[in-house]
Amino acid sequence: MPAPAEPTAPAEPASSAQAAGAAAAPDSPTLALACELIRRRSVTPEDDGCQPLLAARLEALGFAIEPMRFGEVDNLWARRGDQGPVFCFAGHTDVVPPGPIEAWSNDPFEPTLRDGLLYGRGACDMKGSLAAMITATERFVATHPDHRGSLAFLITSDEEGPARDGTRRVVKALSARDEPIDYALVGEPSSQTRLGDLIKNGRRGSLSGVLRVRGKQGHVAYPQLADNPIHRAAPAIAELCAETWDAGNAHFPPTSFQISNIHAGTGADNVIPGELELVFNLRFSTEQTPEALQQRITAILDRHELDYAIDWRVSGHPFLTPAGALVDATQTAIETVTGHPCELSTIGGTSDGRFIAPTGAQVVELGPINATIHKVDECVGVDELEQLSAVYEQTLRRLLGPDTTD
Amino acid sequence: MPAPAEPTAPAEPASSAQAAGAAAAPDSPTLALACELIRRRSVTPEDDGCQPLLAARLEALGFAIEPMRFGEVDNLWARRGDQGPVFCFAGHTDVVPPGPIEAWSNDPFEPTLRDGLLYGRGACDMKGSLAAMITATERFVATHPDHRGSLAFLITSDEEGPARDGTRRVVKALSARDEPIDYALVGEPSSQTRLGDLIKNGRRGSLSGVLRVRGKQGHVAYPQLADNPIHRAAPAIAELCAETWDAGNAHFPPTSFQISNIHAGTGADNVIPGELELVFNLRFSTEQTPEALQQRITAILDRHELDYAIDWRVSGHPFLTPAGALVDATQTAIETVTGHPCELSTIGGTSDGRFIAPTGAQVVELGPINATIHKVDECVGVDELEQLSAVYEQTLRRLLGPDTTD
Repeated sequence: MPAPAEPTAPAEPASSAQAAGAAAAPDSPTLALACELIRRRSVTPEDDGCQPLLAARLEALGFAIEPMRFGEVDNLWARRGDQGPVFCFAGHTDVVPPGPIEAWSNDPFEPTLRDGLLYGRGACDMKGSLAAMITATERFVATHPDHRGSLAFLITSDEEGPARDGTRRVVKALSARDEPIDYALVGEPSSQTRLGDLIKNGRRGSLSGVLRVRGKQGHVAYPQLADNPIHRAAPAIAELCAETWDAGNAHFPPTSFQISNIHAGTGADNVIPGELELVFNLRFSTEQTPEALQQRITAILDRHELDYAIDWRVSGHPFLTPAGALVDATQTAIETVTGHPCELSTIGGTSDGRFIAPTGAQVVELGPINATIHKVDECVGVDELEQLSAVYEQTLRRLLGPDTTD
Repeated sequence: MPAPAEPTAPAEPASSAQAAGAAAAPDSPTLALACELIRRRSVTPEDDGCQPLLAARLEALGFAIEPMRFGEVDNLWARRGDQGPVFCFAGHTDVVPPGPIEAWSNDPFEPTLRDGLLYGRGACDMKGSLAAMITATERFVATHPDHRGSLAFLITSDEEGPARDGTRRVVKALSARDEPIDYALVGEPSSQTRLGDLIKNGRRGSLSGVLRVRGKQGHVAYPQLADNPIHRAAPAIAELCAETWDAGNAHFPPTSFQISNIHAGTGADNVIPGELELVFNLRFSTEQTPEALQQRITAILDRHELDYAIDWRVSGHPFLTPAGALVDATQTAIETVTGHPCELSTIGGTSDGRFIAPTGAQVVELGPINATIHKVDECVGVDELEQLSAVYEQTLRRLLGPDTTD
């Protein structure tokens, strides 16, 4: 999932001891591929050779390989079969910067095994998922060379960054040539405490605003000659923070409003500032539209008679994949492999699913436990990767296997 | 009066045409001396030769001259007579920076006459007042060489700056040797629209606070895992802004509360910040104490259950010089010279009077119309300077003349 900006630090060359540790990994194709991907320093928007590695594996299985480079971003579209329905694994090879290298227990780009966990930047988000997708596909194609429909991969290296030239552009290109995706399984780390305990079958929308409240600068000793925008805005801000926007619905939590930044003041402690700037964000459900939220916010500001302007930005509309073939297949696959049920959820941040869903595709997100994503010492369980690969394979069987129908 | 920080710009050398314009000033000793002072580029804390000029004029009248340099600051204590009561003219030679030179109609350090007004940085605040004090003293001493009591000047070049090594230190040195001031007339530009329409017989106190509200940083998509200090503080801030602190009294306006700075946020628009910082200031009357105000503010913050800390700073206690010899003399002098009555007031910012008043001295502030102070094209009326000098002389006659008593 996209991250807030993290500090970058120069990466240290891997020590031979660490490299040896990773080379001593158990005999697991999924683990081995995850290690190969982690070694590639694909800090967003770099791909650093990850996609060619994946493409080579897929090409060997009979996939048609189509690199799609947009701007500075490498993308990969790979497809096996020319019939519908089209099942697509979607994911990204780019990772967030490692942050302070010295804070890591090992070089973040040297995959390292400790106590059954694989450590490295991207282990969880989402190179582990990519490896599991590939090995699941390899087993599935080996046993079902003539699967029904088509099996595809949509891979980008611009998911952690601006996400302008990645999945968004690929989906646009596919739509332009009338090549639909019916089912998309995004490998985002959706699990909370046990693999598959939660999958995401939708996401909230995201609406941001930069609010500027104008006042009149002056000296604090003469407030009657000034108009303090902080004082003007204070009751409106309090009201916005206290507002209940909706109660959510069966699929979505209530809409949330958060102020991320507020700034006013010249630095001098005897000057009343002339302007207040405030940045806020709403995560909203399918109960809402950006327009309706904008109207409620401006109504509050207007009621407090503020002199203001707002720059609005909608960075994602809410989407929902209700019960249906994809959700059913994924939930059943998880129960079959793990023996545990799986909860549906729409909480959390945005993902590239927001670009695929508007085409009409069913979209779910299913991946490893997300506790360490974007953090120092990011890691994934070795067993978890094996299970994930098995779940992905089961999902393919249920959607593209010989006994299934749309 | 002390100013908010202004940008400095390099001053241009005076053109000979402008210099000639000033040299062509009418035959007024007050105007001539004001021009000489404006030419000295005494941007705070520089004196640039102003005090030696004043000292030379006073020494010629029989004043004992005592330069007092503290740190980087030049101060002047000059006294004529060794008896009480001690009447003291108090003022400053430093000026605020001129700001953008190109915005001025003339070089701010080249005194220029236009339409009966004298333009230049410090014309009004307060080199014009200093000139009027000197010429008033010259006429008074000429006619009353054996005046009663003592006549003194307390001049600093650190009034517009931090005000640490200026009047505060001189008053401390005088107190240490038991040399009291009975009456202090500070030359701050107190007039509003007509010379002498208002004098200040007191000042409000000033209490500042830097408030830090602690929350817990997090991602805007997961507000339940964070604690937004902006949201926490919003209702408390609204309450502080709406609070009525007191109704003032006969001498003071109601206490005012102003927030000068508010900052929170990492810059990223998807991160809930971990801390909010807010800077506020109260101007308060003799109805209040800093302690009582602090208690009321912390009570509001506590009621909203904030996790916070405040750094407090008291930069001035309120003071008041009620009706008495100095106020009477000044008001009568104004009425005599201008034919108009004079209002007493305690509004506005701090002045060096705050350092003199606590010694028990009576203190008033009387100077030119303050409309242009600290601004581009600062100016004072030539007639206004003449009137001011006459008012100062009348005040001296009433307090130190032969027919007066304490």
